Amino acid sequence: MKSSQPHSHQTAYISVEDACLIVQRLGLAHCLAGMTRALEEDFKRWPEFDKTARVASHSARGVIELMPIADSHHYSFKYVNGHPGNTQAGLPTVMALGLLADVDTGLPVLLSELTLCTALRTAATSALAAQALARPDSQVMALIGNGSQAEFQALAFHHLLGIQEVRLFDVDPDARAKVMRNLADSGLHTVDCSSTAQAVQGADIVTTLTADKARAIILDTDLVQPGMHINAVGGDCPGKTELSKGVMQRASVFVEFEAQTRIEGELQQMPADFPVTELWHVLTAQAPGRTHRDQITVFDSVGFALEDFSALRFMRDCAQRLGLNRTLSLIPELNDPKDLFSLIRTHEEALSAT
Amino acid sequence: MKSSQPHSHQTAYISVEDACLIVQRLGLAHCLAGMTRALEEDFKRWPEFDKTARVASHSARGVIELMPIADSHHYSFKYVNGHPGNTQAGLPTVMALGLLADVDTGLPVLLSELTLCTALRTAATSALAAQALARPDSQVMALIGNGSQAEFQALAFHHLLGIQEVRLFDVDPDARAKVMRNLADSGLHTVDCSSTAQAVQGADIVTTLTADKARAIILDTDLVQPGMHINAVGGDCPGKTELSKGVMQRASVFVEFEAQTRIEGELQQMPADFPVTELWHVLTAQAPGRTHRDQITVFDSVGFALEDFSALRFMRDCAQRLGLNRTLSLIPELNDPKDLFSLIRTHEEALSAT
Repeated sequence: MKSSQPHSHQTAYISVEDACLIVQRLGLAHCLAGMTRALEEDFKRWPEFDKTARVASHSARGVIELMPIADSHHYSFKYVNGHPGNTQAGLPTVMALGLLADVDTGLPVLLSELTLCTALRTAATSALAAQALARPDSQVMALIGNGSQAEFQALAFHHLLGIQEVRLFDVDPDARAKVMRNLADSGLHTVDCSSTAQAVQGADIVTTLTADKARAIILDTDLVQPGMHINAVGGDCPGKTELSKGVMQRASVFVEFEAQTRIEGELQQMPADFPVTELWHVLTAQAPGRTHRDQITVFDSVGFALEDFSALRFMRDCAQRLGLNRTLSLIPELNDPKDLFSLIRTHEEALSAT
Repeated sequence: MKSSQPHSHQTAYISVEDACLIVQRLGLAHCLAGMTRALEEDFKRWPEFDKTARVASHSARGVIELMPIADSHHYSFKYVNGHPGNTQAGLPTVMALGLLADVDTGLPVLLSELTLCTALRTAATSALAAQALARPDSQVMALIGNGSQAEFQALAFHHLLGIQEVRLFDVDPDARAKVMRNLADSGLHTVDCSSTAQAVQGADIVTTLTADKARAIILDTDLVQPGMHINAVGGDCPGKTELSKGVMQRASVFVEFEAQTRIEGELQQMPADFPVTELWHVLTAQAPGRTHRDQITVFDSVGFALEDFSALRFMRDCAQRLGLNRTLSLIPELNDPKDLFSLIRTHEEALSAT
């Protein structure tokens, strides 16, 4: 069957520069809010998604993963690495890119950078969970671990939860100084702390975001106060945790996708029947979030493919709104879709004609 | 740690047009030969690869798959769909793209179209297997199923095995006419046949390349002659076969990756202990290929991630040789790789300065 005119099979393309331009033009607060809305919409229709385990390829220096997911309209995957030694070679520890495709045809519709977007979507997911789980009057957040994602977390909680003060601690003073510098004009009051204990003092919310791949105890029961919300972001793969078992036992624990968090999250330390609630159940009012002021809540976040799906569709909408229309030529345009050979035949003719 | 100068984290990019240009400039024969050499090198070091099952997402109209693989230096994956109804919408049934990355850092080094490349690598893999399995004096090939990949198979066997005559059959006369037309100036003698039986008559090699997703019997024992090599390419997923059980029973059967072919290949019809030989064993002389003139050999090909790995590295070499240096900006360039936030901070400053 021949089509009367060639179709446009170009793939929209959001480069790093375009992603930065989107954040700049629309504002970080707007992007975080928009991404949080996209996440909420998608988490609320959780059962509609075909959820697959991520596929990991481990090597001596790190891991490379593919994270696919689909609903009945769109398919997405993220390519993401984790190489702790990368910064010594001038490369980010985590780099990512992603693809959005049409389920009915398999046609890729968007290829996007996802390194910046992952930081945005992780912070937005944390904020979304905290909106349901933290005390509504929360004003002070401790931020333990001041690496690549720290500023994004701080600003998401500032813009979306009204956090006014961020208390910073990292074992590396340069990392703390970097965050202090980057948040200088943000409207947030920043406090440079010399220990986790000092940072956590008086905090309504504690975000743990440390990088070491170890069974660490960043936060133990002695530092946890009634009413705290703990946003545990750094413990996100087997062998990497940040909270003590005691903290988990005292808290109500919320997760993205239970099956995955049992393996990758703080939950890996706990018995297989340790009770948790999936966030989407709270967002759809099928389960309670915070039920009283003194409750300790933990969002045991590991990052799930759904969040990248939401991020990709949000960024695509932003790019369209701003008229960013860079495209890639990844899929052949054929007058007769059964005649793939025409690609090189036509090309030969075209070239020999010049 | 700060690097004194920004690194180049650009990802090389081979568009559809660039892939066509490579085939045009270097010639299809050269590309098929080069890809066959790359495949042979990689198949010969089979144990060095981290081989993962493909990850499929099924929907009402088709399937979307990710096919990852890695050795100690490079990681690759292919994104590929299969949507039989696509041609009615002017789209190819199968579309693909792929990524090559550095295992030590996770940095993506190449993004490439793989629709054209998949046709090339599949034909090259078939030719590589036939070099080991078909009678060396083979001159006539029957080509049953004249869809997108037919010309590539015909030309690979012409250039790499010395096939002089291709006997064509497809239930769709338009498909036959398309292949006749596309091969008109190829140096191959083409014969338009009205049945599989007619096409197979006198053939040294039979390539089955039909599209219907069904338990079909394209080739039964009555048509198979002693000494034939059967290149079974079309039966490549659960529920899709082309050969009768009888043909399989009479033949020595060779496969790419046994675990995968047992599920996806002609082999799905046979008992779990039906004996097969993996191609890499033949290529490394650990197992015999064809041992006598009258032996019937079957290459039960389903397509394996290793072949896309080889295709990607071959295309990258070609692009470099031809000075094609299109790149994508998918990975941020950071003066301090721990300071991801500087991306949007710098950008704000840059914009406010204009």
